[in-house]
Amino acid sequence: MKLLEEKIRRDGVVKTEDILKVDSFLNHQMDVALFEEMAKEWKRLFRDCPINKILTIEASGIGIACLAGREFGVPVVFAKKSKTSNLAGGMYKTQIQSFTHGKTYDVIVSEKFLSAEDHVLIIDDFLANGCAVNGLMELVHSAGGTVEGVGIAIEKGFQGGGDALREKGIRVESLAILESMDPKTGNMVFRPQPQQS
Amino acid sequence: MKLLEEKIRRDGVVKTEDILKVDSFLNHQMDVALFEEMAKEWKRLFRDCPINKILTIEASGIGIACLAGREFGVPVVFAKKSKTSNLAGGMYKTQIQSFTHGKTYDVIVSEKFLSAEDHVLIIDDFLANGCAVNGLMELVHSAGGTVEGVGIAIEKGFQGGGDALREKGIRVESLAILESMDPKTGNMVFRPQPQQS
Repeated sequence: MKLLEEKIRRDGVVKTEDILKVDSFLNHQMDVALFEEMAKEWKRLFRDCPINKILTIEASGIGIACLAGREFGVPVVFAKKSKTSNLAGGMYKTQIQSFTHGKTYDVIVSEKFLSAEDHVLIIDDFLANGCAVNGLMELVHSAGGTVEGVGIAIEKGFQGGGDALREKGIRVESLAILESMDPKTGNMVFRPQPQQS
Repeated sequence: MKLLEEKIRRDGVVKTEDILKVDSFLNHQMDVALFEEMAKEWKRLFRDCPINKILTIEASGIGIACLAGREFGVPVVFAKKSKTSNLAGGMYKTQIQSFTHGKTYDVIVSEKFLSAEDHVLIIDDFLANGCAVNGLMELVHSAGGTVEGVGIAIEKGFQGGGDALREKGIRVESLAILESMDPKTGNMVFRPQPQQS
């Protein structure tokens, strides 16, 4: 998606060969007008899928997932990173390792909000090695639901998680795919995406 | 706001005299169509204020804040609950005690995203004793910014945080204010709000 690539080039900061800071518009301050355009693009890309629910993970997935929920006209569920005293009843559970923080989280979704009838679009801000997406897919499958696809804002193509999912037949639509980043020059190379706007 | 009060009566669960579960539409599964109506109501209530930024706190404030950001046409910043390795540079910091979880969190916002020029609307899902709102106000004031007001989905009027803020001259617009809840009968009493739709 050209609009997102341009935003990343203009406002993203390459910290290392692996780490891109986009906290000025994606995951600390949030450019909601951009999120709305991203949501429209996911809606266009997944227009043939019978999606009735969006699943994301706290915290930085929630904003883009809510704008996507508005565009698709479906509810959004966010997976939580630890059990809280205010969540009673049965939970679907898995563990997810965070690339950014080097930690492993317990991740839960209440059994009330995922079912065998659900056709789920998974939304997240970043896709690196694929741990978060794999965990979210496991939660959907625990409920007997169907993963219709995965919508990602920024995929780090060089970390392989997205292509590994595609090889398994999962439909992954990343609005920007970085092939490489150079922390010395700030240079970024994006994978060409002819089908996208 | 009648629409929200009706939703709370229909889908909210009174767990104790203090705790209301609204995880089916507000803070685990999210009813984005309802969030859009809430955002429109905040926009109507704060229409005279020169708001240029919305501030909320992760995780359950983010969804409603993003829909509000769309309605106001302003960026949204979410305060983070702990320092992460991926956030470099100066931070505004405070501590917030969570009523629900009984814990105290370090809460941070990057200095890049709050300034003396900002006229901020604070948005959150719940207002109980007011700890979260007071913490977020402190972050805005640390930056020299102006708090234009506070938009809350559900205020627990019987816990006093909202009225204490109003007595200090802060404009607090809660879309539903619970005066009491009965866990035996499930009965809820809302404070009348003549100015709201």
